[in-house]
Amino acid sequence: MIHVPAQQTSTLSPAWRACVGTGRTREVLHADYRDSLALVQDEIGFGASRAHGIVHDDMGLVQPYTHEGVAGTRYAFSYVDLVIDTWLDAGVAPFLELGFMPEALASGPDTVFWWRGNITPPRDHGEWAALTRALLTHLIDRYGIEQVRTWPIEVWNEPNLTTFWRDADEAAYHRLYATTARAVKEVDSGLQVGGPAISPGSDDWLPRFADFVASVDVPCDFVSKHAYTSGPAQEVPFGVHQTLRPPQDLLDQFASPGRLLAGSPLEGLPVHITEFSSSYRPDNPIHDTAYQAAYLAPVLASGGDHVASFSYWTLCDVFEELGVPTAPLHGGFGLLGHRQLRKPAFHLYSFMARLGEAVLAQGDDHLVTRHPDGRISMLLWQPLDGTAVADAGHRVRLSLPASGPAHVVERHVDAERGNVRAGWQAMGSPLAPDRRAVEDLHDASAPAVHIHRVQPVGGRWEIDVRLGRHGIALVEVTGSADQTPAWSDDTQLLGLGGDAG
Amino acid sequence: MIHVPAQQTSTLSPAWRACVGTGRTREVLHADYRDSLALVQDEIGFGASRAHGIVHDDMGLVQPYTHEGVAGTRYAFSYVDLVIDTWLDAGVAPFLELGFMPEALASGPDTVFWWRGNITPPRDHGEWAALTRALLTHLIDRYGIEQVRTWPIEVWNEPNLTTFWRDADEAAYHRLYATTARAVKEVDSGLQVGGPAISPGSDDWLPRFADFVASVDVPCDFVSKHAYTSGPAQEVPFGVHQTLRPPQDLLDQFASPGRLLAGSPLEGLPVHITEFSSSYRPDNPIHDTAYQAAYLAPVLASGGDHVASFSYWTLCDVFEELGVPTAPLHGGFGLLGHRQLRKPAFHLYSFMARLGEAVLAQGDDHLVTRHPDGRISMLLWQPLDGTAVADAGHRVRLSLPASGPAHVVERHVDAERGNVRAGWQAMGSPLAPDRRAVEDLHDASAPAVHIHRVQPVGGRWEIDVRLGRHGIALVEVTGSADQTPAWSDDTQLLGLGGDAG
Amino acid sequence: MIHVPAQQTSTLSPAWRACVGTGRTREVLHADYRDSLALVQDEIGFGASRAHGIVHDDMGLVQPYTHEGVAGTRYAFSYVDLVIDTWLDAGVAPFLELGFMPEALASGPDTVFWWRGNITPPRDHGEWAALTRALLTHLIDRYGIEQVRTWPIEVWNEPNLTTFWRDADEAAYHRLYATTARAVKEVDSGLQVGGPAISPGSDDWLPRFADFVASVDVPCDFVSKHAYTSGPAQEVPFGVHQTLRPPQDLLDQFASPGRLLAGSPLEGLPVHITEFSSSYRPDNPIHDTAYQAAYLAPVLASGGDHVASFSYWTLCDVFEELGVPTAPLHGGFGLLGHRQLRKPAFHLYSFMARLGEAVLAQGDDHLVTRHPDGRISMLLWQPLDGTAVADAGHRVRLSLPASGPAHVVERHVDAERGNVRAGWQAMGSPLAPDRRAVEDLHDASAPAVHIHRVQPVGGRWEIDVRLGRHGIALVEVTGSADQTPAWSDDTQLLGLGGDAG
Amino acid sequence: MIHVPAQQTSTLSPAWRACVGTGRTREVLHADYRDSLALVQDEIGFGASRAHGIVHDDMGLVQPYTHEGVAGTRYAFSYVDLVIDTWLDAGVAPFLELGFMPEALASGPDTVFWWRGNITPPRDHGEWAALTRALLTHLIDRYGIEQVRTWPIEVWNEPNLTTFWRDADEAAYHRLYATTARAVKEVDSGLQVGGPAISPGSDDWLPRFADFVASVDVPCDFVSKHAYTSGPAQEVPFGVHQTLRPPQDLLDQFASPGRLLAGSPLEGLPVHITEFSSSYRPDNPIHDTAYQAAYLAPVLASGGDHVASFSYWTLCDVFEELGVPTAPLHGGFGLLGHRQLRKPAFHLYSFMARLGEAVLAQGDDHLVTRHPDGRISMLLWQPLDGTAVADAGHRVRLSLPASGPAHVVERHVDAERGNVRAGWQAMGSPLAPDRRAVEDLHDASAPAVHIHRVQPVGGRWEIDVRLGRHGIALVEVTGSADQTPAWSDDTQLLGLGGDAG
Repeated sequence: MIHVPAQQTSTLSPAWRACVGTGRTREVLHADYRDSLALVQDEIGFGASRAHGIVHDDMGLVQPYTHEGVAGTRYAFSYVDLVIDTWLDAGVAPFLELGFMPEALASGPDTVFWWRGNITPPRDHGEWAALTRALLTHLIDRYGIEQVRTWPIEVWNEPNLTTFWRDADEAAYHRLYATTARAVKEVDSGLQVGGPAISPGSDDWLPRFADFVASVDVPCDFVSKHAYTSGPAQEVPFGVHQTLRPPQDLLDQFASPGRLLAGSPLEGLPVHITEFSSSYRPDNPIHDTAYQAAYLAPVLASGGDHVASFSYWTLCDVFEELGVPTAPLHGGFGLLGHRQLRKPAFHLYSFMARLGEAVLAQGDDHLVTRHPDGRISMLLWQPLDGTAVADAGHRVRLSLPASGPAHVVERHVDAERGNVRAGWQAMGSPLAPDRRAVEDLHDASAPAVHIHRVQPVGGRWEIDVRLGRHGIALVEVTGSADQTPAWSDDTQLLGLGGDAG
Repeated sequence: MIHVPAQQTSTLSPAWRACVGTGRTREVLHADYRDSLALVQDEIGFGASRAHGIVHDDMGLVQPYTHEGVAGTRYAFSYVDLVIDTWLDAGVAPFLELGFMPEALASGPDTVFWWRGNITPPRDHGEWAALTRALLTHLIDRYGIEQVRTWPIEVWNEPNLTTFWRDADEAAYHRLYATTARAVKEVDSGLQVGGPAISPGSDDWLPRFADFVASVDVPCDFVSKHAYTSGPAQEVPFGVHQTLRPPQDLLDQFASPGRLLAGSPLEGLPVHITEFSSSYRPDNPIHDTAYQAAYLAPVLASGGDHVASFSYWTLCDVFEELGVPTAPLHGGFGLLGHRQLRKPAFHLYSFMARLGEAVLAQGDDHLVTRHPDGRISMLLWQPLDGTAVADAGHRVRLSLPASGPAHVVERHVDAERGNVRAGWQAMGSPLAPDRRAVEDLHDASAPAVHIHRVQPVGGRWEIDVRLGRHGIALVEVTGSADQTPAWSDDTQLLGLGGDAG
Repeated sequence: MIHVPAQQTSTLSPAWRACVGTGRTREVLHADYRDSLALVQDEIGFGASRAHGIVHDDMGLVQPYTHEGVAGTRYAFSYVDLVIDTWLDAGVAPFLELGFMPEALASGPDTVFWWRGNITPPRDHGEWAALTRALLTHLIDRYGIEQVRTWPIEVWNEPNLTTFWRDADEAAYHRLYATTARAVKEVDSGLQVGGPAISPGSDDWLPRFADFVASVDVPCDFVSKHAYTSGPAQEVPFGVHQTLRPPQDLLDQFASPGRLLAGSPLEGLPVHITEFSSSYRPDNPIHDTAYQAAYLAPVLASGGDHVASFSYWTLCDVFEELGVPTAPLHGGFGLLGHRQLRKPAFHLYSFMARLGEAVLAQGDDHLVTRHPDGRISMLLWQPLDGTAVADAGHRVRLSLPASGPAHVVERHVDAERGNVRAGWQAMGSPLAPDRRAVEDLHDASAPAVHIHRVQPVGGRWEIDVRLGRHGIALVEVTGSADQTPAWSDDTQLLGLGGDAG
Repeated sequence: MIHVPAQQTSTLSPAWRACVGTGRTREVLHADYRDSLALVQDEIGFGASRAHGIVHDDMGLVQPYTHEGVAGTRYAFSYVDLVIDTWLDAGVAPFLELGFMPEALASGPDTVFWWRGNITPPRDHGEWAALTRALLTHLIDRYGIEQVRTWPIEVWNEPNLTTFWRDADEAAYHRLYATTARAVKEVDSGLQVGGPAISPGSDDWLPRFADFVASVDVPCDFVSKHAYTSGPAQEVPFGVHQTLRPPQDLLDQFASPGRLLAGSPLEGLPVHITEFSSSYRPDNPIHDTAYQAAYLAPVLASGGDHVASFSYWTLCDVFEELGVPTAPLHGGFGLLGHRQLRKPAFHLYSFMARLGEAVLAQGDDHLVTRHPDGRISMLLWQPLDGTAVADAGHRVRLSLPASGPAHVVERHVDAERGNVRAGWQAMGSPLAPDRRAVEDLHDASAPAVHIHRVQPVGGRWEIDVRLGRHGIALVEVTGSADQTPAWSDDTQLLGLGGDAG
């Protein structure tokens, strides 16, 4: 029995929904993405989104031409503006990631992903600086300086990997960072720039990054990195299976920059986890499971203790790093599948979004909060460590400070309930379900809801919640007087006595 | 075990959704009504709607004036047009009920309902005929003759009750009918007119109505009456409890005009049940229960055997015969409560709307149909007789003709599940729930959905469905190959074996 | 030539859109009202709305009953909540007008309007106080005290007229005011209460009202009155023609409370003009004309100099004081006709809504403003005095401070352009236009738009605007570089020279 | 004076809106495309759409893999289904164009366009046939055979050009056609297949195509080709200027297959013009002008005399053959620009969509039609021959058969009115207009609307329409009684006489 005090013990940090990932900037233009964005914002309300490739060639930003023998470059903002308008219309700010290299500026032909992002340094740093200035100047003209100053600007993505940055050349990254950061501040000194956007396992880059920016006096307003817990992989066609480390490992990854940079010139800067999830693969079925939701619940509950933001990678399965997805559930990163199919992780986020700011209690399987109007909202989950599945569900018993009679609204998602993947597998895992099947999956992916009354005993409400296997639950307790009139009698429903229910 | 044959045994008549009731014509102008209409049409798709009071004074149709000493009447169609446009935009045709009497034409001051419909005969039949002609001429001008010819025109409402027609004067009704029917046909002989729109218990009016129209050679294109099964009432504030007769009684009421008019001049005319439900009171909580849904299920399944239409009274709780409703659930007639709260009866209709046309089997607790694409959809219910509540649920076992592996989608509504009233009572029956509570009730009123696979055994699928107490279910069986690839293995989800679910 | 300075001369008061009138509280429930509200808020954005009859019987608020021989009253908030939710969803706060008298509380049978608002004092002031407290307590429970404290509470409507208050009994009004104000403050001392909501021509009530509240120490947070300029009327069926006084007369009416209450205990309180227009009749065609827009333009431009709000009476033609309107344009008060037909006065407000806060110049035919981004927006109008129509249009020439090349967007509404009434009359003034005609009227009521370039001359832009007869215009000047590329040449459109346009 | 007879002279063929072009299949997934599609369908209502690249790699349809050493291909319909669902939801059927070659099936590396469609023949015709069968089998499974039989299937695009088909190898095309047509008919003999989809100027392919299909007995259900009238080009950065031939040239191109195939085995087959416009370049500003609309008006009016469909290339400017467009108006093919800016050609189509079926008169500058309800709707235009621009507008005078008093609704689009490009140029041709500017352009691109009355004289209405330069107009004449009441008098608007307008 968890004894929840009446006094607030802490405040829930907004870091968990400060940002969410989008695969590629251009994908924001997809209708299915926009539909997903609308649903996510309606139920969750992220503050920002970060996407790869804002200057990638498919955005058409850099358009060289020749006129009367003289070469020029037209910066074409048609798509950049459409993307940012789409985000802003949905209440999402851009978390700008500058990359990859436009072909016209690139020093080589190397690319990453099905969509071929060029991963080479600029052939001419002056051209890159000019592009940076042109982009930011345009954004300020269009959206106003007050707004753009709140949009973090991150330099490149995972330069510590040869996949994303030619030879994972650290010195070349430092040079790119310096060029970019200075170009940014030339446009406006109030803009925020940061890096180094490294993938897990290379935190040794951080102190060297700190030394570099200090040594050459380059501006840096925040530090960024990624966090994943997946290990060795077995590949199968269109998929992969990987081991996972415990969720605490994610929190440790969140915490490391603060530890490693203590005493450095970057001490105290905001840390942004610009990508995180269990697996870093867009074809790992774990992303579609209830396991993912219960596994990440403690991370969402505590992540804000360590960082300014941690950005779920990604908002939806409009995502093409490995090509066009071949099935409605294909292990994609998204909170939502195509056609807005809600995965359990989506519900985890939507449950978080209904919590209050005042934290009353927090533990291995619970996060109990209170709203200004007194309502108590809590997130409960089955503790999972990533190394083993559960045989059965989990029970949470709580004693809460009461204020008269109340009703309890429980919403459950687990291996059976609110589980789009279970429904899809029951259908035979169709690669191309028809519309009726998609409708059925929409219905089957709604959390199970149950409402019941609770009476105070000794000034306390005792709540006993049975979570299903790999389950999470949102449980809300609202004080509510019984307004049933004295003359009401359900046994008279048929005019003759007997409970007609 | 119900053995369902592979051959179609009959065709499901569309009579069950040919029409739905609307309390009062003017109520169609309410935003909450329009929202409910949209939801109902999206999930059910009624063909028409019938409402009281199209010429009642609150429609403003008859507007007398005097100019330079000469009296005139302006027929003002502002609201009539808005009402009919609203219906047609939603795919619903008007089932025109002519009444009540505009004050300017009335022979007396007697009224019915909180909204004071005048129940007296016209002071001058010529004025009434002129109004009838003006209305129909206008409708034809605006909507076209082809369309208006499909809109039945019913003369008055329940003239056999003193509440609705002064002194329940049968001869006066006959005279009104004659005047109206002739005026209708004067406008266009292809228009359909009928009556006598009587309430239950007065079927003796029917033969006399037949005699009358024959004797004076008045046109009559259809016969109409109402059907309810409620008995003696106990009144409480803002409510009533009544006994109910078995649902078969409703079917008997449907069947009686055919029987009574056999051999009469009206033999063979379409019969429209222009109102039906369990109780005729807009404040009987039975309407809000799962009991209502299970109780009416066999009526929806079989009603079309007897009549051309039977019109649920009513579409939603925007309904003011007793005044403004005082609670979100108040025993109103509607399929939907205010703010589109879905009652179990709504789900009954939405389940019916997903059945196929080809009936394979039908019985006390089941209606099994097939769609052109081979999918089997069935409505199941717990048999209830209106005189006693159930202690437990009900089990239905079926053996169906199979065509390979399949999946089954079950949707359940019962005393616990998909039950807005149970949720509302758990909240303490709030008279004015806040928005959050209304949202919770919306979520709690969704049917429970479960999907599972079924394999054919001996060319048959065996389905075992457990209905909850007072339960109904929509069960759909769709042939579906198993497309799970050979390499898929959920025990590898964590990269290490063990079912990760 | 109007020489507009570069320096801001004053700030545009938000009083012009602080509030807008709604005929009757219940009318907010109409779908057509809600559609109009959405359009009005999208283009204008009023801060609040005031309506008659929140406690009138058609709201169903007061519902007496008897149980086991004991009488009680249930306060039913079903409709009150729907109304206020509708407003708040549209970004409009309630400006609460308490009235008319529920029949159960009334001291007599006298009513006003087609919808029969009871105009008699309460038979028991305790009951009225209880109702007041119950209503406000409920609103605070539902919407929160912070919000309700911003909703002014006005006691009754035009008690100085026998039409609205039995015998126009001033002492009885003072007593009602005292009862109400004290009940309000009992609920929460931070709520704002005021009166006396008088009609034009009775400003002598104001000093006596001030004396009364001071003499018995009753709270008063604001003073309210109405303003109209219409004079003697000629009645015709479904209409009226009236003389008008000059628009300055409206501004004088706005100013008089400040003057009359100087030195009184109510000195310095906010003054709310809770209704204003040209005519106080809902059947005067002037409301539908371009004349109305040009006539009221100077009032909107300057009204905020005198009062905290002045509330256009009314938002739309869903309005039934004289019964159901008999034609789409019938001289109704609304900015919008039924089906959202935009009248010239709507455009006047939508033009006002696009002005900047910084006023650069203001005069008999112009209000010139600047936005923070430098854009200049101005409202221009033909001066009209209400006593004569114009034979021709009006020309306005302005010299504006320039900042490089610019483009000018002109939007015009006048006797010919953007004029729904002119279009409707050309159609033969149809009482019930069909849908196609309504669509044509929608198109015909759009302002005429024209865009042209202007080059600075001597640091100034010279703008020469030709207003049509009874015209208003929104003219916006935006600095815009010419980005036409050097190689662009429209004479080459057909590949051969010659301007292809 | 054009004398229009009362008798119908012909029926307007639906060919003009049977189909519209979409640049690339994948572009249907763009949100901006979907928004444009919705607007186009709302105002025009095309029957089908044809797009390049349904099997291009960016659709992800063909996904090879290897499992346990064995190679396989997964056909992934995720995007194909999303595209077709999007079209069908909008009421548009697919006009399937099979191409370009998936890389996995290609015989070489040659590509066309910025988006790199592979233009080489299949390396193995068996693989191509298998893909064709897989695609069509899936479409039939998902959408039903009845529906898919109505979707024409066209083999490849412009094989007569080396740009689109390696070496423009005619024999290789014939072989591809034969393989494809046979694969199509293997799936279902009721499917419709055709070709050769040639560009203008190569009609000599047609007789040889006829000979080929006859000689080897390959099925062919229709013949297709393209039609453009642009000539020599001058290139400038991001644009081109080209001469045009007269519009009659387009009609001649439409007519030629019928003439050339007379007597051949393909005689009498439906001819589909699967692309047409003035210029075949997506960067010719002519597409954005009023000139384009007036120039094409006679083609829309008469095209149906020659062919079963002629498909405007394209619906909107979501189109990337040359890369990402660099400006809102960039000479793109679309009826709509990005963000749904309506070009004059859009209005031409929306005007056509309001014509009746019964043609009363047709000529060089007019197409006069009547609706079943008697309303007369006509399209008028200034005759333009593509070789010279006009100095002034054009006047059309008509004498129409009258039926009482009427009103005339005129809608005009010309060099000044309803002209988005004129507005944009007045703004300085901004490459990236801000949102306010886009709103202003939306307003400025609405046709000018004017309504006036006309009285019959000698049983005729005389209409005198003044078209602006490069103008088109929709003029509708509707019989309408004058319902203005006798007592109405606008000179009394101010209560004192004088026309208040």
